[in-house]
Formats: sequence, C-alpha cells, structure tokens
Amino acid sequence: MSAEVLTIGDELLRGEIVDSNKSYLSDRLLSLDIETRFHASVRDDPEDMAEAFRRARERSEIVLVSGGLGPTRDDLTIEVLARTFGHKLVLHEPSLAAMRAFFARFGRSMAKINEKQAWFPEGAEVLPNPIGTAPGTMLREGGTLFFCMPGVPRELYLMMDEQVLPRIAAARRGGPVVRSRLLRTFGLGESNLDELLADVATDGPVVLGFRTAFPDNYLRPLARGATAEEADARLARVVETIRARLGAMVYAEGEQTLEDVVGVRLRNAGRTLAVAESCTGGLLAERITSVPGASDYFLGGVVVYANEAKVRLLDVPEGLLAEHGAVSEAVARAMATGVRERFGADFGVATTGISGPGGGTPEKPVGTVWIAVATEESTHAESFLFPFERERHREVTCQVALDWIRRALLGEALVAPRYLRSGR
Amino acid sequence: MSAEVLTIGDELLRGEIVDSNKSYLSDRLLSLDIETRFHASVRDDPEDMAEAFRRARERSEIVLVSGGLGPTRDDLTIEVLARTFGHKLVLHEPSLAAMRAFFARFGRSMAKINEKQAWFPEGAEVLPNPIGTAPGTMLREGGTLFFCMPGVPRELYLMMDEQVLPRIAAARRGGPVVRSRLLRTFGLGESNLDELLADVATDGPVVLGFRTAFPDNYLRPLARGATAEEADARLARVVETIRARLGAMVYAEGEQTLEDVVGVRLRNAGRTLAVAESCTGGLLAERITSVPGASDYFLGGVVVYANEAKVRLLDVPEGLLAEHGAVSEAVARAMATGVRERFGADFGVATTGISGPGGGTPEKPVGTVWIAVATEESTHAESFLFPFERERHREVTCQVALDWIRRALLGEALVAPRYLRSGR
Repeated sequence: MSAEVLTIGDELLRGEIVDSNKSYLSDRLLSLDIETRFHASVRDDPEDMAEAFRRARERSEIVLVSGGLGPTRDDLTIEVLARTFGHKLVLHEPSLAAMRAFFARFGRSMAKINEKQAWFPEGAEVLPNPIGTAPGTMLREGGTLFFCMPGVPRELYLMMDEQVLPRIAAARRGGPVVRSRLLRTFGLGESNLDELLADVATDGPVVLGFRTAFPDNYLRPLARGATAEEADARLARVVETIRARLGAMVYAEGEQTLEDVVGVRLRNAGRTLAVAESCTGGLLAERITSVPGASDYFLGGVVVYANEAKVRLLDVPEGLLAEHGAVSEAVARAMATGVRERFGADFGVATTGISGPGGGTPEKPVGTVWIAVATEESTHAESFLFPFERERHREVTCQVALDWIRRALLGEALVAPRYLRSGR
Repeated sequence: MSAEVLTIGDELLRGEIVDSNKSYLSDRLLSLDIETRFHASVRDDPEDMAEAFRRARERSEIVLVSGGLGPTRDDLTIEVLARTFGHKLVLHEPSLAAMRAFFARFGRSMAKINEKQAWFPEGAEVLPNPIGTAPGTMLREGGTLFFCMPGVPRELYLMMDEQVLPRIAAARRGGPVVRSRLLRTFGLGESNLDELLADVATDGPVVLGFRTAFPDNYLRPLARGATAEEADARLARVVETIRARLGAMVYAEGEQTLEDVVGVRLRNAGRTLAVAESCTGGLLAERITSVPGASDYFLGGVVVYANEAKVRLLDVPEGLLAEHGAVSEAVARAMATGVRERFGADFGVATTGISGPGGGTPEKPVGTVWIAVATEESTHAESFLFPFERERHREVTCQVALDWIRRALLGEALVAPRYLRSGR
C-alpha cells in the first residue's frame, strides 16, 4: 500500500517547531510493513490544503493527516477535506456529548467554539479521542483512505495506535496479516548484528529491519501470516531466535528505555543506587530521575567537576588525584566506592573522562573516559576512547554505565560495547 | 517570494530520524521575511525526486533541497536534478582539488567514489562546503532558484547562512533589503509581550515576530530598507526600543542559550557555582556542564533525592526536614547555603519540589517547587506552582534557577516569571 503523511499548521512552515509527528507516523506504518512514500506539510491555508488533499488522493492509498482539528478559526482540516471532495458537514451528537463530558470532568462548561469539533464530513467514520476534545476522522475517497488526527503528540500517538492502525490492517483485506515488534539492543554495531542474524532475515514471511538510534541499535522483526495466529507464531519464533543469539544485548522492547529497565530491575530487587559524575555532568542522574517514581531506588548523586569536590564529597584520597590524575582507574574506583558509601547505596557508579572539545593531552586524549561500578563485593572499572563530540560522548558514557547496572542485576558480565574503540 | 523546502532520504520516510532541517531552513528564511509555503520529503527514488523537482519549479521561486549529496549509490540529488531539467553533468576541478585537500588534512587519500561529488549540472553555481566533502549547488530554472545542500545539520547550517541566504537576498534585486535579529526572553508570556510592544510592531517597515520556545519566548524584529544601511539603522532602533522596554527580560540573542550566558557572566566575573538538586534530578548540572569549558566556573553539584542524603551531604538539619518536610522554604534555603559551603562556591542554588505525576498532597500539590539562590550576603527563596507535567516542570524550574544566577550577576532583582502561577 502506498502511504503519505500530511501535517498541517502555520507553526510548522515557520519552523517554530520540529515536526516529530511525521517520523512517528511513518515508524508506526512500518510496523504493518507499509512504507511511507511522501511527507508533506502545508500552512492553515484552505487552497494549499485542498490541493494537498487532491494530490494525496491521486498518489496514495493511505493518507495520514495531522493537525488543524482544534476549535479555532485556523483549524480547517475537516471543513476543507469535506469541501474538497464534495461532502457536506453533519453534526455527530455522540462526539458533542463526549466533549461536554470532557469539559465537565475539569469542572468547566464547553465553549460555543468547541461545537465545531463535533461536525464531520457525511459518510466519514469518527475516531474517538479519550484524552482530548478533537475526535479523529476516517474518510474513504475512491481507493484512498484519509485519517485525520490531532497534532498534539500524545493524542496523535494514542489515536494512531488504537484507532488508525487496526483500521489500516482491516482495510488490507485479502493480504497477509502482519505482526512486528521492536527490540532494543546496546553493545553491537549494525554490521555485527547483521552478521549474527544473517539467516534470520531470509526466512520468506519474516523480515528483519534494522534501525540505528545512537548509541543503540533497534531490530524490528516482522512476520506475515495467512491468519493472526500464524503471524503471531512466526513472530514469536523469530523473536526467540534473536533473543537466544543476542542474550543480554537485547535490553528492552517497544518504548521502554534503558533507564526504565534499570528502574524496574532495581525496584524488583529492592536495591538502591547512587552516582558520582565528572564528565557526564549530571546527565546520568537526570536520565535516572526522568523515570517517575525513581526515588524508590535512586538515593542521589554528586557532580564533582573540581578535584577538591572529589576529595570533600567522595573521600577520594588527594594522593590518588596527584599521582594518577582525575581521569584514571584509581580515581574512578575511588569515586564509585566513595559515592556508594556516602549514600549507603547497593550500587555506586562513577564516570570520569574528557568529553572535549578541550582538555585532552597526548596521554589522555579527548574522548578518554573511565567508568566504574561498585557493589558490596567488588568494583569493576574500564576505560574507553569514545570518538564522539561532547554531547554524544556524554550520552554513550551514560548508556554504558546504565547498561552495567542492568547487567549486574541480571548477573551478566559487565562487557563493553564491542563496536566502541577501547582506550588505554 | 514563494519558498519550499524539500528534504531527501529513505531514513526520513521510514521515520528513523526526526527531520529538523526543515524547521531550521524555514526559520532562516523568515530572517529575510520569506515565508515557506511547502515542506516535502521523498525517498532516494529518482522518479519521486524528479516529480518533486518539477512540482517545486511550478509552484515556488525558492527551493531549498537538503540531502542526497553524499558519495554513495543512494545519493542522487544532483544527478536527478540535472536530468530532470535537461542539463548534462560537468566536472568542477576546484571542488575535486578541495575534496582531495580535505582528505589530506586527515591523512587519508580520497576514495574514487567521492569523485562523484565534484560533478555538477552545467550552468550551476557551486557552493563551497568548508567542513565536509559535499559542496552545494545553486541552479536557476526559469523563475525558480534551486539550492542543494548537504543533509548533515552542521554542514547545512553553515552553507545556509554563509552561501544561500546572501544569494537569496541578492536575487531579490529591486526589493527592499531585509535585516532581522532574534531576541530571547524569559519571564513574560506572549500576551504580556504583545501588550508591552504593541506600538513597536506597527511601524511600517518594521515587523515584530513572536515565537514560543517553552519556557522562553523569542522576538524577531525585522526591518526593511531601501539600502542595507537604512535597514540596519531601523533594526538597531527597534532592538534598542525593545531592550529599553524589556530590560533584563531579554537574556540573549541568536543561538546563545541561557546556560551559555550564565557561563560567560560567571567566567567574566571570576565567580563560581555549585548546585543542589532534588526535583530537577541532575538536569540543572547537566545543562550547566553542556557548555564546553564549564569547569572554569562550575565546581559541582549534588542530587539529593533521599532525605538522608540532604542531611549527610548538605548538612541540612534533620529537625528542619522533620518539621517542614523536604519541599519547604527552610529546606530549600538550607540546601542552597549547604551546597555553597560544601563546594566553597560563590553561588549555591537549590531546587526541591514535586514534579509528579505522583507524590502530591492537598497541602503540597504536584507542581509545587521551591527554588533558592545563596550568596555570601544573603539567600533568596521563592515557591511556585508550575502547572506542567514532569519533564516541563523540571525544565522551567531549571530555567528560573539559571535566570536567577544571571540576574544576581547583573545586580537585577530575582523576579519570578509573571506568567507562571505562584504557589504558597
């Protein structure tokens, strides 16, 4: 099926916001094995919108439209869609009632202006929006299915997953049923993955997609079947094969992040964590605490940029700093054990390195970093030379640190990502 | 002039990356008072690309193309552009020499495959790329100017600013000269700004654009003139008026961030900073240390999620925590003075609050936060009730904290953003 994504709004064309809806929608279409052929955006301009709708009908079977469903004068998507294809607008009473109930929940009465959002092109199907006021619309025009969704990302995501994707799957009657999953891996490059899984991707009704999401790599196994059961069974088999080959390299599925996984595992194990950051400058703590409820297992952290702070806050011996320098195995270990003891945590994690662009020396070039994890039993420390600029250097350092906590909780070895050059 | 942005690449249509080039290019066009009418993206497919080029020529005077300039088989932009409009490709010797020199600088010899990047449509102008191997192209087709630029953001940004914008300005011969600047403000909502500057926006050749960039608001004054001197003088006058009205609400111009400004001011004043974070969880330290060279003025920080950590690391008296709770004026003050003393810094900053979604009580609902700044002389603390979800709550809390450091260094009052509801 040929698909197209059309987003609408002056703010997009003025460059005020980066349009992430398009990539989200295209990514979700891939889960049904449908490639997007065109992305387009137009302003809140009736003529440009009408022309985009006509063109989309000519060239695409699936058209995902986002934006322009609000209550204001600028929100014209439904009105222009109806006019372009010669439909009149009709009032959808259940939507009006749902909107009134939505406002009542917040103790407010609905403004007159919102009524507009309950009118739809005759013959269209209304898609409920349980978390906002603007319902979506499905309209069939000849061989083309138009889906209009809100521009607000969380409303769009929910409507795409719960309302739109099932309807697209159903519209593809006669074709195979498609099922897919997203596996997140860390520690192997794309070519390594390709090699390890070369035979998995060649099995007729199974396709294996790769996707780089620095510093991770994602795998998207996709299976087709004559029935849902057949597709599900095939997908389960290929996921099992991948997991057997990659083991702990697969850290999560779907939308779950590495910090989510670390949080779940720490909470389930009843263990606690504290972090000591030099080069990552707070990013590690920030990622850990971005997960709601992190206070259950995260006791806290220190960002020790100055050497004196390493001594005063973490009891790193001054002699170590003088002898080895701040970016060294001895100091990384002392930071990890120091922060663990200071906070009374089960795990102490430390990062110390040179993220650049300045601060490198011939012996310790920009990119050098030491990462250490301390538990009651032992401390593991390793150095890397990550050839990335400042921001990515900090990101990948945090990813290794988080991955080591995950691995420690799983009883797995604290291995280094194979695709990253090792330092001294 | 009617403008269009066309980005090219399979990775865009598969949703693997969020396409920020389009918003960047449209934003830069606005600096010349040119609105973008269309955004489009196609895959690395010669037919779809050719169709997009033809269509762009029909409907737009300026077409900014990004992507597909690399050396691989998939990189087809120049070849397809030439073929679509009936040009042959010719070798541009200076580009070939520049590419060889580029590789030589990294001690490598140029691969045969890169030669492709030195071929251009006959009659096109070559746009140098000082930081990459792919030069850009300007091609005039009838009334339409095509500019092809690399997809790599930093190469694109430089080429757009240094090569493309001056050529667009020059092509608009006869029309007025346009000059604009971007002023970043924090602390006033869009409607407040609109009110304060209502008369500024109505001065014939001067237009004032507004743009929301949570939690900031940006202003883009734009001036037209018969000559560059006239436009520059008008722009200088309007910027002066805005700055006189808004005072310290304007914190920076152009691409400079609040953490950049705070860093510059701390360094120039020879002062140092340490931070104590509870609800912001490391985000404040992360933002401060995202600026290269932050170690000149940032001594470090602590993330004290657990109460025990507040006591042990910051000397917050246990009695205060028991009496007032962690989210309180007394504890915020004790954290700010504690971290200042522990690190021996000039400024100590503290955040403690309830970012949600859990953890609220009737007395201290989700959204409550205390922010404190301690200096040798005094400590300022204030509470807010920010009605934002977790991520934005943390962002705006950090923005207020950074803004207070900036204001303290300027000798300005530590005012709260007027558009944010104040808590208890």
